[in-house]
Amino acid sequence: MKSFIEVSAESHFPIQNLPYGVFNTKENGQPSVGVAIGDYVVDLAILEAKGFFKHCLNTNISVFQQSVLNPFMELGHKAWHGVRQTLQTLLSADEPTLRDDAELRGQVLIPRDEVKLHLPIKIGDYTDFYASKEHATNIGVMFRGKENALMPNWTHLPVGYHGRASSVVLSGKKVRRPLGQLKAPEKPPVFAPCRQLDFELEVGCFIGTGNKLGEPIPVDDAEKHVFGMVLVNDWSARDIQSWEYQPLGPFLAKNFSTSISPWVVPMEALEPFRVNGPTQDPKPLAYLDQKGPGSFDIQLEVHLRSQRMNQPKRISASNYRYLYWSIAQQIAHHTIGGCDLHTGDLLASGTISGSEKSSRGSLMELTWRGAEPIALNDEEQRQWLEDGDELIMTGWCQGNGYRIGFGEVSGVIEPALEIEQALGTKSKATVI
Amino acid sequence: MKSFIEVSAESHFPIQNLPYGVFNTKENGQPSVGVAIGDYVVDLAILEAKGFFKHCLNTNISVFQQSVLNPFMELGHKAWHGVRQTLQTLLSADEPTLRDDAELRGQVLIPRDEVKLHLPIKIGDYTDFYASKEHATNIGVMFRGKENALMPNWTHLPVGYHGRASSVVLSGKKVRRPLGQLKAPEKPPVFAPCRQLDFELEVGCFIGTGNKLGEPIPVDDAEKHVFGMVLVNDWSARDIQSWEYQPLGPFLAKNFSTSISPWVVPMEALEPFRVNGPTQDPKPLAYLDQKGPGSFDIQLEVHLRSQRMNQPKRISASNYRYLYWSIAQQIAHHTIGGCDLHTGDLLASGTISGSEKSSRGSLMELTWRGAEPIALNDEEQRQWLEDGDELIMTGWCQGNGYRIGFGEVSGVIEPALEIEQALGTKSKATVI
Repeated sequence: MKSFIEVSAESHFPIQNLPYGVFNTKENGQPSVGVAIGDYVVDLAILEAKGFFKHCLNTNISVFQQSVLNPFMELGHKAWHGVRQTLQTLLSADEPTLRDDAELRGQVLIPRDEVKLHLPIKIGDYTDFYASKEHATNIGVMFRGKENALMPNWTHLPVGYHGRASSVVLSGKKVRRPLGQLKAPEKPPVFAPCRQLDFELEVGCFIGTGNKLGEPIPVDDAEKHVFGMVLVNDWSARDIQSWEYQPLGPFLAKNFSTSISPWVVPMEALEPFRVNGPTQDPKPLAYLDQKGPGSFDIQLEVHLRSQRMNQPKRISASNYRYLYWSIAQQIAHHTIGGCDLHTGDLLASGTISGSEKSSRGSLMELTWRGAEPIALNDEEQRQWLEDGDELIMTGWCQGNGYRIGFGEVSGVIEPALEIEQALGTKSKATVI
Repeated sequence: MKSFIEVSAESHFPIQNLPYGVFNTKENGQPSVGVAIGDYVVDLAILEAKGFFKHCLNTNISVFQQSVLNPFMELGHKAWHGVRQTLQTLLSADEPTLRDDAELRGQVLIPRDEVKLHLPIKIGDYTDFYASKEHATNIGVMFRGKENALMPNWTHLPVGYHGRASSVVLSGKKVRRPLGQLKAPEKPPVFAPCRQLDFELEVGCFIGTGNKLGEPIPVDDAEKHVFGMVLVNDWSARDIQSWEYQPLGPFLAKNFSTSISPWVVPMEALEPFRVNGPTQDPKPLAYLDQKGPGSFDIQLEVHLRSQRMNQPKRISASNYRYLYWSIAQQIAHHTIGGCDLHTGDLLASGTISGSEKSSRGSLMELTWRGAEPIALNDEEQRQWLEDGDELIMTGWCQGNGYRIGFGEVSGVIEPALEIEQALGTKSKATVI
């Protein structure tokens, strides 16, 4: 498959990908839905208005003249497939309709560096899983010691917990270092800026169509409910976490910001990269027993750039296929008790670590809780993230001469609020 | 204060209360916002259309011709106060406008037993706290033994976790017994219907106006952000919980249903019942150090009716004032790291248990994990909830000759899905 739009072999956005996003231009403040191809965005609202999707979208409203993808997602996987096929035909090298119509091209193709991107989806609920055995083991050893590292439930069910949907933000949004309670051994807790600020390398999937309360989604039907995937950085405050997390799990340690990449990669684009995940032993219970391979070969990288560096340095290289529990298993488990998923719900994988040290998906693991700092250059090293650091994650599937890429999710650390400002004592004094 | 509408001393809805709900009538399928008074609902959409709130609602849209309270809540506490004052005047015994206008009364006052109630608020995120020291201690003893019952963090911060917003349902909705993984000691986990189904007696508050990401709400400003309160039954599957909850907290054990009462009691109505909560030792850190009393004297009761009983039996009597951590402290803590709250977010208290056995707020505590069943009548006892059981919670503040009541939150337990149905194997066979 080849497009009349030139796309380099390293580009994340060839015609085989066509990820969805929401954008507006300087000239047009009204957001609309687009797909990325090469250095361009294709404006789907214009194509829709011109009737290009009439045969595959059975709806009276415009689903692309929208500030979020949700109305399109609600239409279900047949509609997603229809639009994708239409676009691949329209953008292909052999098809003259758009290729030879300069006026239409001028309206529909917008240089990607001229658009402003938005959070593409209105997120209902956000769930974070813990699906990497290597990550769960590493964190367990550090928080609870070797004997209690991997809890006995871990190999029987995809452990997960409810995250905070309101603080999911778009890549590029600065991340303020949180204030919170920190506790040193044998001392009372103090109120201070987080000292152990970390990232977590994750991939998330968005629910396209959900289920009714009380009606579980069978594991082999689950993938039909998934619209697409993004990169997720689940920023974490390790010192706040270790003090607060027992017995009800992480709370403030994770809810100050969660960043996602702006382009939602459709599941169909990932299909050629489907692989088996790790062998599961013990065999999962019936409701988790997925037929066929449920994982994807997605290369993942983490890069860090301090304020003094011109170029970021790669500090981790991992792969989505290392995850023990698949998306289908996560969805089957999530709904087996009756919980209802809805259009726009985000299910993140949990940190994706491999068995090699270089494939660990968090600073906590890479530096072993700060004990083994990593060198950024001759002068700088890191135990934890420092103010001004930029953290960039990227990921792609390597095809034959092309890549199905996720683009990037990035964020720069801002200093914590001054304590007086957080307490409201400063601003009040100013107001009086 | 007295209304021209007759209200008995035991009614939950005198003129001093005026809780908000969303309803429709048989004749008019369009939901709108109302307040409850005595046996009536006052239709605020009609009053709004007639201009009664023009002086206190500065908005171009109708905030009461709506299927949820959120647009009204967004206007902030001055608007809430203005509408409440207007209504108390309009409904008072001395004011002729409505009292002496039979036609207007006929339009605006609807018998409460003729309306259909809806979930009153579009819930963004749902957070569940763990604010009762007695409850946390009881559960801790049973799950982890006496030595590890109350975690060391508990007296330093209001422990809380993110709950599932999608499965919050209105009182009266049936609750299906969840399927899940159950684990007996020394045996592998099995997939089966929950055998330890429980309720949790809670009270929740709804955020009216939130904060921006990165900008904490100071503890002494926090209550201004709260629109009102409801009863919450946080249904819990104890066997699923004890197997799944480590290390990331409860997940499927709590997300199959959470029921709330339909009438949202305004914070102003609770003001005469403000009291001190328990003494806090150690003294909370600065950001949690609330000036003045932060609790409310709300009597709470739990009643259970088996299928064979005509009348429910009271099985617990507790009080909101037993809670250790106040709403203001919960909000200050929730936002101190920067997490943003939004209009419609629900913050529940956690189970409210007192120091007496009869004041425990869950079956797990009342029966000590099933070891001490409670008698319902001469023939029936309960360790856990059984299919067909109806569970009813109620609560009120006792004033001098009147009650500020919450009405009820109730639910009947339905049998679990058949395993084949949950796995999708049954329906598929039928389809073929």
